[in-house]
Amino acid sequence: MKFCSQCGSNAVTFSIPQGDDRPRHLCGNCGTIHYINPRVIVGVLPYLEDRVLLCKRAIEPRLGLWTLPAGFMENGETSEEGALRESWEEARASIRVDELYSIYDIPHINQVYLMYRGELTDTNFGPGPESLEVSLFRQEEIPWAEIAFPIMHKTLKHYFTDTEQGQYQLHRGVISRKL
Amino acid sequence: MKFCSQCGSNAVTFSIPQGDDRPRHLCGNCGTIHYINPRVIVGVLPYLEDRVLLCKRAIEPRLGLWTLPAGFMENGETSEEGALRESWEEARASIRVDELYSIYDIPHINQVYLMYRGELTDTNFGPGPESLEVSLFRQEEIPWAEIAFPIMHKTLKHYFTDTEQGQYQLHRGVISRKL
Ligand SMILES: [Zn+2]
Ligand SMILES: [Zn+2]
Repeated sequence: MKFCSQCGSNAVTFSIPQGDDRPRHLCGNCGTIHYINPRVIVGVLPYLEDRVLLCKRAIEPRLGLWTLPAGFMENGETSEEGALRESWEEARASIRVDELYSIYDIPHINQVYLMYRGELTDTNFGPGPESLEVSLFRQEEIPWAEIAFPIMHKTLKHYFTDTEQGQYQLHRGVISRKL
Repeated sequence: MKFCSQCGSNAVTFSIPQGDDRPRHLCGNCGTIHYINPRVIVGVLPYLEDRVLLCKRAIEPRLGLWTLPAGFMENGETSEEGALRESWEEARASIRVDELYSIYDIPHINQVYLMYRGELTDTNFGPGPESLEVSLFRQEEIPWAEIAFPIMHKTLKHYFTDTEQGQYQLHRGVISRKL
């Protein structure tokens, strides 16, 4: 933040406001404290029988790698609505949501992932503008070395393990910065 | 947003950027799109034997009403770390977290609540600066008519029901605008 979005002043410092315990973007002109908080990413693990839908990314980061449909939650929607919206935008997929399936904190990039599990209602899917390709994969067909993000890799692994065991449970974890 | 935080221009409109499907704060001078996303509120339901800890709010909104310790998740922390931080800040409470306990979407105010369940490790709690009073309540002692927020009311009700049934499960829901 270079300028105050409230008054336009460039007297914005990153310093600890009175009574607070951590630095904020603080306007020296009008006194506004600009809070910046973590963002929520919502998505779906879409399945059909023994296959899971993945999208090949048409955008950076990780262009060309595969991921589950997901994206930033928007104001005015629920996390489930956001997850379904992303599935439509990225994969033109229609989904019947079963349950919330995984929650991951990624503190070093200030993100919280909420991933739902849901069944495809038909096979009329296809790439949206942010995908190069959308396809269904059986467990042994998953391009494990080409999964875009660790959170997606973990969620997929949990899914196939839970499927083998015949019971799905919520998975929760933290993705730490790579050492 | 009245001024662009990137260039200081006041040519900020709330309009749909090219290729997008919803209005954003868009700078007509430097072209920056300013995204505003939902915020995460993290908290704890702290218990000790058959009692639950509540805080009487010293700040608006809902000053003087009772709530579970919770607050905005900060950058750089996990949701569980944030929940423990809020318990300390509001109730000077030390807690051993059991599990994530409730998730509520509140789309009309762009919030997602993540509430953990955890046992107090001692009774050395007390009001932090945002609380007037902190106290333990048995089910029949809870001031149900004076609970600050519907999300807290629901989470408490689930807790006592689950306690009676001897099994805790994740609760998920949507709080809609009051009609
Ligand atoms: Zn200012
Ligand atoms: Zn600008």
